[in-house]
Amino acid sequence: MSDIKVIKIGGNVIDDESKLSRFLQEFASMKSPRILVHGGGKLATRLAEQLKIETRMIDGRRVTDKATLDVVTMVYAGLINKRIVATLQGFGCNALGLSGADAGIIRAVKRPAEPIDFGFVGDIVSVDGQRLAAFAEGGIVPVICSIMHDGMGTLLNCNADSVASAVASGVGRVSPTELIFCFEKNGVLRNVSDAASVIPEITAGTYPALKAEGVISAGMIPKVENALKAVNEGVTGVTIKHSDDLLNDNTGTLIRK
Amino acid sequence: MSDIKVIKIGGNVIDDESKLSRFLQEFASMKSPRILVHGGGKLATRLAEQLKIETRMIDGRRVTDKATLDVVTMVYAGLINKRIVATLQGFGCNALGLSGADAGIIRAVKRPAEPIDFGFVGDIVSVDGQRLAAFAEGGIVPVICSIMHDGMGTLLNCNADSVASAVASGVGRVSPTELIFCFEKNGVLRNVSDAASVIPEITAGTYPALKAEGVISAGMIPKVENALKAVNEGVTGVTIKHSDDLLNDNTGTLIRK
Repeated sequence: MSDIKVIKIGGNVIDDESKLSRFLQEFASMKSPRILVHGGGKLATRLAEQLKIETRMIDGRRVTDKATLDVVTMVYAGLINKRIVATLQGFGCNALGLSGADAGIIRAVKRPAEPIDFGFVGDIVSVDGQRLAAFAEGGIVPVICSIMHDGMGTLLNCNADSVASAVASGVGRVSPTELIFCFEKNGVLRNVSDAASVIPEITAGTYPALKAEGVISAGMIPKVENALKAVNEGVTGVTIKHSDDLLNDNTGTLIRK
Repeated sequence: MSDIKVIKIGGNVIDDESKLSRFLQEFASMKSPRILVHGGGKLATRLAEQLKIETRMIDGRRVTDKATLDVVTMVYAGLINKRIVATLQGFGCNALGLSGADAGIIRAVKRPAEPIDFGFVGDIVSVDGQRLAAFAEGGIVPVICSIMHDGMGTLLNCNADSVASAVASGVGRVSPTELIFCFEKNGVLRNVSDAASVIPEITAGTYPALKAEGVISAGMIPKVENALKAVNEGVTGVTIKHSDDLLNDNTGTLIRK
């Protein structure tokens, strides 16, 4: 059987109805066992505004209080997850929507309140790779949102890139697994204003220089570091590519050991 | 292996935090393979009000327009479903939250727009009893909300009592199955103002007289008729009982063939 592919899409795809529909149609047409991890997009922010829930930011990062947790649970695990699942089912792909709490597949721990209390934000501690691999290889396509649980009854909001990496690592312990981050750029760019300047390959050996030179900066740093962590934990390879290029091999940036 | 139990809780249990917590703790402690079906409660109505989504009623029934469908998808499939799943996981019960779209387990058809267009409201046409029985007998406890799909990409809101009956009938074709409706009364009462007047048993033979005499009326009619339909389709027995009495056998009203 071919490798299991863990594919992550972010907010930019989710917020654009025609982009999302095209992506899901291509995702549905894939033959290999696969798992989709999705981020949130702007719907949650808009709903929080409509409900007049104040957005508290500390050091540029959002605080997830109880009301905000309810909003992201409704939007990520409810509206976005079920829309994606129903759309994939319509394309003949047997999708199964999951939060981390469902079948206890992903457990997180609440981030300590010291030095900064970010509220109901979690970091992943364990993934049931066995169960996820069994679903994927048995013809079910898990569609995972970024809402996790602590195993003691509390839901926690996690970073979707980290969820994708953790899922790929967990499944990779059971079966050969690749990780693909799909976003709105052609890959990791040498020059952000030149779409053609994709760096074809990054390894743990070449990354430090790219970071030191400032070629990889800002939002790209956690993405590449998540990817390197995943390959270090046994994931075969990680590709960062454009969401329009899902079916085009040899595009994007390959990150390997 | 013992019978699969399909247990339905309604809005009155969901809206009362301490009632819900007690119920879920008892549900988690049960030993038999089981499936939970839950209704909605008042949260969706409250959210729709906050979002200033107008509630349109025709003949006393709510019209589910696109905005309302989004609200119920968020609340039923997102907030309530994931809260229940996380709580059950905290009690050591391996719950798996599902809409009808997930793994394509329940398919519905949009109600015809003639004579009255109720919008995105569906009637169930098929249940994957095989898959649900396999989950339940394999140690996973499905927790099903009332959001279904048409198999062509559209989500539909269904009546939770009908979902419970359809699930029990579908699972009952694969494995012996009981259906239990838990609500805020002790059972079907002969006299609604006397909590002790529970009718211990109703059959297809005794029901018509009870209905003709007006003993069974209003909201009780669809519940009992759903139950009779389920026993007619092979469900071993249906019990209508108080949500506090989940673990007390020989309480409530037994409906059998």
